[in-house]
Amino acid sequence: MRLVSFEAEGGAGFGLVEGDAVADLTGAFAGRAAGLRGLLAAGLLKEARHAAASAPRRPLAGLRLLPVIPDPDKIICVGLNYRDHVAETGRTETPEPALFARFAGSQVGHGQPLVRPRVSERFDYEGELAVVIGTAGRHVVEGDALAHVAGYACYNEGSVRDWQMHTTQFLAGKTFAGTGAFGPWLVTSDEIPDPSTLTLETRLNGQVVQRTTTDLMITGVPRLIAYISTILPLLPGDVIVSGTPGGVGAKRNPPLWMKPGDVAEVEISGIGVLRNPVVQEA
Amino acid sequence: MRLVSFEAEGGAGFGLVEGDAVADLTGAFAGRAAGLRGLLAAGLLKEARHAAASAPRRPLAGLRLLPVIPDPDKIICVGLNYRDHVAETGRTETPEPALFARFAGSQVGHGQPLVRPRVSERFDYEGELAVVIGTAGRHVVEGDALAHVAGYACYNEGSVRDWQMHTTQFLAGKTFAGTGAFGPWLVTSDEIPDPSTLTLETRLNGQVVQRTTTDLMITGVPRLIAYISTILPLLPGDVIVSGTPGGVGAKRNPPLWMKPGDVAEVEISGIGVLRNPVVQEA
Repeated sequence: MRLVSFEAEGGAGFGLVEGDAVADLTGAFAGRAAGLRGLLAAGLLKEARHAAASAPRRPLAGLRLLPVIPDPDKIICVGLNYRDHVAETGRTETPEPALFARFAGSQVGHGQPLVRPRVSERFDYEGELAVVIGTAGRHVVEGDALAHVAGYACYNEGSVRDWQMHTTQFLAGKTFAGTGAFGPWLVTSDEIPDPSTLTLETRLNGQVVQRTTTDLMITGVPRLIAYISTILPLLPGDVIVSGTPGGVGAKRNPPLWMKPGDVAEVEISGIGVLRNPVVQEA
Repeated sequence: MRLVSFEAEGGAGFGLVEGDAVADLTGAFAGRAAGLRGLLAAGLLKEARHAAASAPRRPLAGLRLLPVIPDPDKIICVGLNYRDHVAETGRTETPEPALFARFAGSQVGHGQPLVRPRVSERFDYEGELAVVIGTAGRHVVEGDALAHVAGYACYNEGSVRDWQMHTTQFLAGKTFAGTGAFGPWLVTSDEIPDPSTLTLETRLNGQVVQRTTTDLMITGVPRLIAYISTILPLLPGDVIVSGTPGGVGAKRNPPLWMKPGDVAEVEISGIGVLRNPVVQEA
């Protein structure tokens, strides 16, 4: 299943993508699930498939898509999780994953503009695999971890590099409004039984700037889930943004920054293409 | 005004503290404000004072208090914001504040136990001044910043030091479940016109372990608000935890860790005492 969140009257609508159309599930689950996060929390994913058969159709192209989960309880990003990226930053690999947060207010959906802020021209792309939690868990062991995943999406973890480097802590450069693209949709985990078998490519104006296979993650998805759930409970709708490979703009010579008018894409095999234009903050 | 959040049937109740009693405002604002965050978002702080006159009284001692804001959109913590703490960590001062996040699920209220996790005995205290936003703002200038503050509270930013130091990013050690105490209440900013004039003291089992005046912050509250709101909008109920002074347990010789059976207190002049027992994770 491919599930999308979109702007609807009265809040976030959600539905099931079928070719060029979306079966709008918002009404069918009214009072039971507010948004895709609510659908996951209520354990209604299987029911969604059945409800889609009789749901009203909307053309996908006419919808204003939202971040796949517009209102997650938490977004946990992983830094330095591919060896070629660790190498290009001049840092050293650590046995544990480097976690930092991003706030929900920094996200945009597929097709919506990524926003280069007024205060910086060092706006960089980071193509990443996003993992969406479906079943709550604490102290999850690695062997059970993938059973807690609802599905996967593409993420462009847009980074304002000079603000990221103001101090040792990355947060400032990682949570500017409109810098995190999350989409185009959630592909449920029945279609991706193993997230370490995917190919990820980032393109800027059609030029390939990052390319990796997800087996090259230093800390794979199961161990990320185990590590994070040792700290606090993972909840339905939580998002783990699993890290970017080498090729970021900041480490090129000369550096390659995203600028207004550009189009950034993140494509992951089995998921699809997340595409966003870049605009200047008003 | 001193406003508390407490556990009530059907969610978070809130009220105004008057001596040993709480004027329960939950019912008076039903449908208009769900919780203290909702009260701030709806701009109903002044009305709360009037509504309290006819609100039902509950004994304060009988309430199970929640974190002052149980469900903030974001909690932004500031690291290394007092010179004596920067010095004891062996780090160097940076011109910009070091920001990291904490998730709402890591918080507890006044009187509730701080939880030492199973995976570590290096559970440290950090007494801090918490700033609660009342009025939304983006690109707030320093001169206007304090007008965006609803009020202040005490925070014990409990830190799991070995997990904090797994990588360069602090988040992992800063957001364990049950490690962030936030209370006892919100003191509205009309009672604290200048947050740089306060005295903060942390005590462990009655022994003073940290003591500072808030004028010693490297980045004061107005500049924190300006800096953060450059990144993304501050919203009503957002929490800025403004940093801890020197004296943390990790930098003592021998180190001083919080352990089950201990009682930790953070007292700030004009606010009150936040007191929490320490328990072991079940």
